[in-house]
Amino acid sequence: MEELETVLAEADLPLTADGSPVFHQSRHSIPTFSRCLHAPEGTESLDYDMHESPQTLRFLSEQAAALKMKSCCLRLLGRGGIRWIVVCVAGLGTGLVASAINVSLMGLAELRRLLLSKAIESSAGVVAPYLVFLAFSLACASVAGALVCFVEPLAAGSGIPEIKSFLNGVNVPRVLRPLTLVAKGVGVIFSVAAGLPCGKEGPMIHCGAIMGALASYAFSGPLLRPISIDREQRDLVAAGAAAGVAAAFGAPVGGVLFAIEEGASHMSVDIMLKTFVCSAVSALVVHFFTGGFDGQTWGLFGAEVPLPFGHLPDLAFHIWELPTFAFMGLVGGLAGAFWNALNLRLSRWRMRYIGVRTCRRFLEVLVLTTLIVSLKFFVPVLVTGNLDYVVGTDLQTYYWDGEDEAVDVIFHRDFISPSSLLIAGTVQFVISVVTYGMGVPSGLFVPMLYLGALWGRLFGEGLLMIGMVDSHEHVAKYAVVGAVAALAGTARISISLSVIMLECIDNNSFGAPLFLATMIAKWVGSIFNPGIYDIHLELKHVPLLEPRAQKEMLSMRVQDVMAKDVVSLCPVETVRRVLEVLEDSERLHHGFPVVDEASGRFLGLIQRRMLLHLLRSGRERSIFQERLGPAEEQNTPKPVPNWLSNSELATQATGRFKMSELQSALGPQDLDRCVNLLPYTNQGAYTIPAHARVMRCYALFRSMGLRHLPVVDEQSKLCGMITRKDLILAPAHEKKWFGGQDDDAESSDQESESEDEETDAAS
Amino acid sequence: MEELETVLAEADLPLTADGSPVFHQSRHSIPTFSRCLHAPEGTESLDYDMHESPQTLRFLSEQAAALKMKSCCLRLLGRGGIRWIVVCVAGLGTGLVASAINVSLMGLAELRRLLLSKAIESSAGVVAPYLVFLAFSLACASVAGALVCFVEPLAAGSGIPEIKSFLNGVNVPRVLRPLTLVAKGVGVIFSVAAGLPCGKEGPMIHCGAIMGALASYAFSGPLLRPISIDREQRDLVAAGAAAGVAAAFGAPVGGVLFAIEEGASHMSVDIMLKTFVCSAVSALVVHFFTGGFDGQTWGLFGAEVPLPFGHLPDLAFHIWELPTFAFMGLVGGLAGAFWNALNLRLSRWRMRYIGVRTCRRFLEVLVLTTLIVSLKFFVPVLVTGNLDYVVGTDLQTYYWDGEDEAVDVIFHRDFISPSSLLIAGTVQFVISVVTYGMGVPSGLFVPMLYLGALWGRLFGEGLLMIGMVDSHEHVAKYAVVGAVAALAGTARISISLSVIMLECIDNNSFGAPLFLATMIAKWVGSIFNPGIYDIHLELKHVPLLEPRAQKEMLSMRVQDVMAKDVVSLCPVETVRRVLEVLEDSERLHHGFPVVDEASGRFLGLIQRRMLLHLLRSGRERSIFQERLGPAEEQNTPKPVPNWLSNSELATQATGRFKMSELQSALGPQDLDRCVNLLPYTNQGAYTIPAHARVMRCYALFRSMGLRHLPVVDEQSKLCGMITRKDLILAPAHEKKWFGGQDDDAESSDQESESEDEETDAAS
Repeated sequence: MEELETVLAEADLPLTADGSPVFHQSRHSIPTFSRCLHAPEGTESLDYDMHESPQTLRFLSEQAAALKMKSCCLRLLGRGGIRWIVVCVAGLGTGLVASAINVSLMGLAELRRLLLSKAIESSAGVVAPYLVFLAFSLACASVAGALVCFVEPLAAGSGIPEIKSFLNGVNVPRVLRPLTLVAKGVGVIFSVAAGLPCGKEGPMIHCGAIMGALASYAFSGPLLRPISIDREQRDLVAAGAAAGVAAAFGAPVGGVLFAIEEGASHMSVDIMLKTFVCSAVSALVVHFFTGGFDGQTWGLFGAEVPLPFGHLPDLAFHIWELPTFAFMGLVGGLAGAFWNALNLRLSRWRMRYIGVRTCRRFLEVLVLTTLIVSLKFFVPVLVTGNLDYVVGTDLQTYYWDGEDEAVDVIFHRDFISPSSLLIAGTVQFVISVVTYGMGVPSGLFVPMLYLGALWGRLFGEGLLMIGMVDSHEHVAKYAVVGAVAALAGTARISISLSVIMLECIDNNSFGAPLFLATMIAKWVGSIFNPGIYDIHLELKHVPLLEPRAQKEMLSMRVQDVMAKDVVSLCPVETVRRVLEVLEDSERLHHGFPVVDEASGRFLGLIQRRMLLHLLRSGRERSIFQERLGPAEEQNTPKPVPNWLSNSELATQATGRFKMSELQSALGPQDLDRCVNLLPYTNQGAYTIPAHARVMRCYALFRSMGLRHLPVVDEQSKLCGMITRKDLILAPAHEKKWFGGQDDDAESSDQESESEDEETDAAS
Repeated sequence: MEELETVLAEADLPLTADGSPVFHQSRHSIPTFSRCLHAPEGTESLDYDMHESPQTLRFLSEQAAALKMKSCCLRLLGRGGIRWIVVCVAGLGTGLVASAINVSLMGLAELRRLLLSKAIESSAGVVAPYLVFLAFSLACASVAGALVCFVEPLAAGSGIPEIKSFLNGVNVPRVLRPLTLVAKGVGVIFSVAAGLPCGKEGPMIHCGAIMGALASYAFSGPLLRPISIDREQRDLVAAGAAAGVAAAFGAPVGGVLFAIEEGASHMSVDIMLKTFVCSAVSALVVHFFTGGFDGQTWGLFGAEVPLPFGHLPDLAFHIWELPTFAFMGLVGGLAGAFWNALNLRLSRWRMRYIGVRTCRRFLEVLVLTTLIVSLKFFVPVLVTGNLDYVVGTDLQTYYWDGEDEAVDVIFHRDFISPSSLLIAGTVQFVISVVTYGMGVPSGLFVPMLYLGALWGRLFGEGLLMIGMVDSHEHVAKYAVVGAVAALAGTARISISLSVIMLECIDNNSFGAPLFLATMIAKWVGSIFNPGIYDIHLELKHVPLLEPRAQKEMLSMRVQDVMAKDVVSLCPVETVRRVLEVLEDSERLHHGFPVVDEASGRFLGLIQRRMLLHLLRSGRERSIFQERLGPAEEQNTPKPVPNWLSNSELATQATGRFKMSELQSALGPQDLDRCVNLLPYTNQGAYTIPAHARVMRCYALFRSMGLRHLPVVDEQSKLCGMITRKDLILAPAHEKKWFGGQDDDAESSDQESESEDEETDAAS
């Protein structure tokens, strides 16, 4: 607050153009955040702003004219109608993918059960069944592991962090391509079938998001390309992710809320409607297949379709039980934070010694699978003392069958012995910590729900013993609350999780205990560390913008955090200079302010993509002009600009040019010619005054989904640029909980370096 | 599109300061939108922007310091913690109000039943029971009518339009004050008890919103006042409205979705969480009382609490039934549009001949109540031919008892004769059209659900007859789908309505039919006219901003729609001039750009409120200074500004100054003194370039919740101002479906007037 005082003391003095005091000028000497923050290579911000250059507007009007000429159907529907169809297609695709995963899993589980029972029948000892069990698991795990370690490393884990970062405005490369869909979709079948504590739900959400992204290619052609394709893609990815949740749990409402809660902060009513439709279609498709394969009449829906964790419509609770549920939330939060801390340590160790795309990672998968499967096999055998006491009992479900079935049993079985819950809970805690981050596709939802259900049920049994609960019937609710508390404690989702669970058990009147437990688990956990998804994003150095600006940003000014070494262009530039700017690999910018040469006034923002288009097609379209002397310039009337064609512009979505291709397209005589950039420049770009507070800048940047925000002084002279990294690196964002670790030593070095540089900058 | 072409042809030419062509310069000669659009007097835009003047920042830092000095509890909680408490209090209050309404209604219904049965017992004929029935209804209706016609006219109707407009950023005066809460809360008890087709749900939502607004007064003191109190209030009103839905239907999730769907487009994750908590608390309170009074153990929750329309957990449907549901949606949309059109005509007639706060309105209530109640009494008697055949049968429920109970019966009764459904459906259609807009508090939800349930059930019975449905058990689902289709057809809410219904019948697996029917009903209805809430907002001329900009806004520039006659201030102004500007009743502005005298550069925006503070406290705080000659000015060092105290600033929330009070606070010698406005000016205010597209301006204005958006040219000279009215009046917003009616003759007159003025403005 002292800082604020200093700022205030001078706040009323008009600012000089450059001589203004610099408070937080630091850490902005490194040009792109991808290197600065060690983000995965190629990580890019997304740009949801509307680029209203005359060229774009012309594109849109030509497009409208072309659409009028088209066949009746396309004209009648328009882009709006096609959007609805595309949304339905994305939902349908997600539902089909999810159903395929479900059906394959059912097949593999049946196969394993068969093999195991044969092995048990044919031999008396424990060894043969164990070997069958292990071999099956290893075979499955090696498929899943190979897909991750040698095909697509991004298929590892749940994929939710990556989707979260995409919705936040950061595109990690390869996350949304079809190969990732294949690796993830196939991989998760085998990782779950291997008997590892992996959920299929997270990967299904990732698959849904990819389906959404693929569906957005419907808009990539010149006829349907909207003013911002990034925005179209973002909305469809959000809808696809929601559809993934809907497919995984049969929970369309929970899916939409999940999309909102996990980053789709751009949610408008219109997008929400589309997201709903997408989710509903996806849930319907999944229910269709679930119902069909489960022996129901095909095509029957509603209350007769089986649910992931079984129906639980009759839960009741008393008002004085609410503190108990709150206590469960508290414990869930503490346990979740502990789980996160353990997993963080393990993930750090993995990053250092195992790597991402290595044989060591594959080996880790095999070794861990062996250990986990052995544990899962022998614990029930050792507990009962005999293999025969395991087969066909609940113990088999807890350890050998799928986790969804185990949750179902824990929710519905009247009597379960506390000791078996205790042992299973301990085992599940250990193996779930170890598995998340391993080189296989692995969701977190069901393993954590199972873990929580075990402990919650144990707690309920305890209450039953001391007489606080009447009968076994009432113990189920503690398992339900425990399940969501454990997941909320690690993943820090609250509302959407509660609603998903309500939809999972087909019950609406049990909301209050779930809300309470998840909210408290989330709060308590957040005291100690961020959610597991955020931890993994931090580990990957993905630069997320939090939904709200930090309080400290009120005391900082934009000029204190902006990048000052901005590469700008003049309204009329030589082709050589444009090429140089694009080739500058040191400072790979994606947007360039266009600035009046004489006065330094900001005129607009031109995108890298547009410059590439200009260079590629400039000669053909006679966009390049001979340079004129100042006298001639006065006399010659301004030429009408030449435009790029719609099909040329539409190529930008599908691929990028290579620099070499560009250079060959340009002749040596072209390099000295000029190009008038103004017709291709977004002249309406938002700007922010240099003396405005960072908080205001943050709100503008995030609400409007910007990628570049030019900073201007009072004469509307360009004086800097705000990008995502500047907001992330604003000092208030120092992640204190992360400090003191080796991994961040580097960044604190940077800090001191840049403090040294402060004097340079001030001079 | 020709227009776009013209715009494009010049798009690359740099704009001259004023000589640019004016396309849509029209209709902006009238200064405030409240008069221009005939909005209710005193209607004001809300301002959600953060006012970062040095004065405000100082206020915040002093506040933080003061908070540190305070008692441990307040310090520990901070504003964030208190916000959570306030949210819970708002939810609690809403729940208590709703429960009080529910309990009173139960009491009155019991009383009526008692009186009626006594009358039937004591006399043989129809006359005595009829008179008792009528007298009771008239007594109730006169209480409700008197509260609306003589106490608070805003208590009429459902209140949802007013809340929608508040969340959209328009404050209709008196909507959120305590007296309105009393009038609405008490009024709705009596209007429902009168037997009119009024729902208590809309008024409960209004009551919730008022509770939210009242709870926001916790932040009005100097210690807790946040940087934007308007924003705080908006969030709490949204939370309160959601709590109202949650209380009305026991549907917390539906409540949150309702708040999002009906206007809370500012929804961030954080606000959504708070809204959820508020809803959950409110639903819990209502369930507590519902369960308690319904003969359950007090404090028992969950599946055992009775629901508004009874539990329906076992609905199932086949995939080939989906087209049937879609067809029901279609019919619902058509019927809803017809209903809306009838109600619109009636409302126009009412506005012309009855008025708002008149005895005629009260008389209308009495006359209509007599008619409706007579109809309701005699129809069943005439149908059966004898009073005794009515008492104790379903007919009594359809006509004499509450509509919730009737819906419950239609959803659950195995056999209902189609003819009774047909008659009841027709009666309900007529009386519901007539009632909405009458001078009593009347919600639309339950009457429309009841109407739809009747017709839907009839449709189901028809299907049963032709053999498309197996048994009576399966007819209920058509009643449910019909209910939501009818409501979606009039009110045009889709998702939240589906979820509310799912929560109402405690069923999650029946989502798809409801989504489908509501979406189609909404689309079909929207072809013909807007939703009933929007119609009533239009009739009141409340200027709403749609969530999305119109496509046509892409072809318009900001300079074409902005207001050009902006009243601006210089950085140093005489007190006289400030007073003049504030007193100018012709042009009552609420924000004034501060502009550099010499260059015309825009320096910031100062609020009317702040100017009033300055004038009131200026002498006391020695903010007024002697005017200096230009030579002196050069030599004198700039004085440190004097600040307003925090408690002075905090008064702005609770009341306004009267002009006379202000003038007495100023002595004659003060008028010639000067005041430096810069320390009190929001210097970071967003601006928009004059040549930017209106679409961009629209997005900025709406996303950031602005009230004033200064327009600057390329030299950052102020050249205009965008307010809500400029965006509303942009030609693309002409409401074509409304045209050709007498009521709008006035505004088309205005149009031609302002077209005449175009030449003046251009000169």
